[in-house]
Amino acid sequence: MVNMNDVSRLAGVSRGTVSNYINGLKVRSAAQMRIEKAIKELNYVPNAAARTLKTNRSNYVVLIIPMVNTPFFSELSYRMQLILKENGYKMILCNSNNRPQEEIEYIQMAKKQKVAGIITMSYADIRKLVPPDIPLVALENKVADFFPLIISDNYRGGILAAEKLHTLGAKRLLFISRAPVKNVSLAREKGFKDYCMKNDIECTCFVAENKVTFVDDFHDFIKANMTEKKFRYDGVFSDSDEYASDFWYLLLRQKIAVPEEVQIIGFDAARVYPRQKIAISSIRQPVAEIAKQAVKGLKGQLAEADNSHKKLYQPLVLPVSFIQGQTTKELK
Amino acid sequence: MVNMNDVSRLAGVSRGTVSNYINGLKVRSAAQMRIEKAIKELNYVPNAAARTLKTNRSNYVVLIIPMVNTPFFSELSYRMQLILKENGYKMILCNSNNRPQEEIEYIQMAKKQKVAGIITMSYADIRKLVPPDIPLVALENKVADFFPLIISDNYRGGILAAEKLHTLGAKRLLFISRAPVKNVSLAREKGFKDYCMKNDIECTCFVAENKVTFVDDFHDFIKANMTEKKFRYDGVFSDSDEYASDFWYLLLRQKIAVPEEVQIIGFDAARVYPRQKIAISSIRQPVAEIAKQAVKGLKGQLAEADNSHKKLYQPLVLPVSFIQGQTTKELK
Repeated sequence: MVNMNDVSRLAGVSRGTVSNYINGLKVRSAAQMRIEKAIKELNYVPNAAARTLKTNRSNYVVLIIPMVNTPFFSELSYRMQLILKENGYKMILCNSNNRPQEEIEYIQMAKKQKVAGIITMSYADIRKLVPPDIPLVALENKVADFFPLIISDNYRGGILAAEKLHTLGAKRLLFISRAPVKNVSLAREKGFKDYCMKNDIECTCFVAENKVTFVDDFHDFIKANMTEKKFRYDGVFSDSDEYASDFWYLLLRQKIAVPEEVQIIGFDAARVYPRQKIAISSIRQPVAEIAKQAVKGLKGQLAEADNSHKKLYQPLVLPVSFIQGQTTKELK
Repeated sequence: MVNMNDVSRLAGVSRGTVSNYINGLKVRSAAQMRIEKAIKELNYVPNAAARTLKTNRSNYVVLIIPMVNTPFFSELSYRMQLILKENGYKMILCNSNNRPQEEIEYIQMAKKQKVAGIITMSYADIRKLVPPDIPLVALENKVADFFPLIISDNYRGGILAAEKLHTLGAKRLLFISRAPVKNVSLAREKGFKDYCMKNDIECTCFVAENKVTFVDDFHDFIKANMTEKKFRYDGVFSDSDEYASDFWYLLLRQKIAVPEEVQIIGFDAARVYPRQKIAISSIRQPVAEIAKQAVKGLKGQLAEADNSHKKLYQPLVLPVSFIQGQTTKELK
């Protein structure tokens, strides 16, 4: 079987240079051309498994998310794969379906496969499961102080939403969510309420408790707050575009005009199709930046001489922004 | 380092049984308990890289799609990962961005990693790049006769759309798409036209040629076909939900009521959020079945004694169905 030494010999460069080339590191362009020619002539295929066994690390990165089939997570997966690829990594996509047991299984799989790292949006207690030599970056929810955490500025997002609705003339504000409310949502709600309190704006929070058909809860809430074909609130903020779109639909069924009578702001601002504009005005999470910082966080840990999780990290908080859709008025 | 023999010894079962357990095959539950206890006691971690080197095959499957961040592809990725996981495989997600060069790079990567198989929606000429010992299943577009092809019944989808619009009272039908039109779209268009011809229904096809801003082409087409605030066509079928939603938005901007004045049917019927109903009435591709058959196709090839791509396959055509959204009338 052809090996790296054969390539080195035919190309007339050192074995180390061939190794660098194979591992995606920079080599002089003259050397690169000679190596590529030799690889082609010899029909050499680098054996990833042999390399993993030797370096004790594959170039796979595991991405654990609740489920890829929503606009935010599909965009995150897309961006993540793009940036991992640029850095020479392959991405193993894992849907946890929000089940702790599945998250745990994926972590065990990652351990078995000797992956280069794990990027996870995890709500299970996995801190003790991650072996010391595997880097991990947590998204949204902290895993442990010794792993980097990347999080959007959720509190500021809540403030932005209230401020925007206020500036656009809304006077009776409403925050909607559904149980169980996660930490990031609590921060979004708190930002919203704090702005309202500081500016003396009426503000109500409604959390649907009916886990199976929470849309029915939204429906009942709307019905209970209708007087003479008018909805009591004129500005609505939700911690998710999904619930915002449910609410929008329910308001339309009551013949409430959006944004003329009620304005709505959601959270995430992920697009259904990359080329299209968003329908729901929303607070945008910086998806490309989240992906970039996550990969940077992994590489930082890989570069550490000592991987025993001794370094402690402060959360990296990324800025959010307001994106105009069809559910808020245009500022004149 | 602890190895499989140590586990076998402590558990008091044969090495073969431990191996079966590790590889996800069925073992008697009494043996399973003993093996799990031994693995725990010894803190044994099976080494995937060593296994790959020995069996010359990893348990990774590469999924190549244009981009995960659209409703159809994100649902397909979700379903695919679910079924691969049930079968003991991990999924490497690859976005090709519709670039042949990227598809080719992914195939080369798959070769290097000695993956268990490739599932691809590929439009590049990759048939000569896939090594004989790697199984491949093509989705939507044929790679070669010696690889299984799984495809939705696109022609029948076109017929269904025309039939539905006809039954719901539409009299002047329109098919819209954008260049370049792929084979699957041509089949959708042909089914639509054939039904119209057979039933003597007026039918026009409009393909936007302006690749950058094809929405402008749609807009111009609508403007050119307006007479006294009425749009000339009352039934529209698109080969994609994406274009259908663009068209819907443009019609609303001209104050054309959908579905009262114009009814629209798209293609795919993938949901934006798994829990929500679809907005655009559409022809549904059977995503879960596509994923199931793709994995079955890979396993069939893996089970062949001789992997030299000698077997020839007929395309597996899966049935489509109509799903009611908000853009067609309800049948009374």
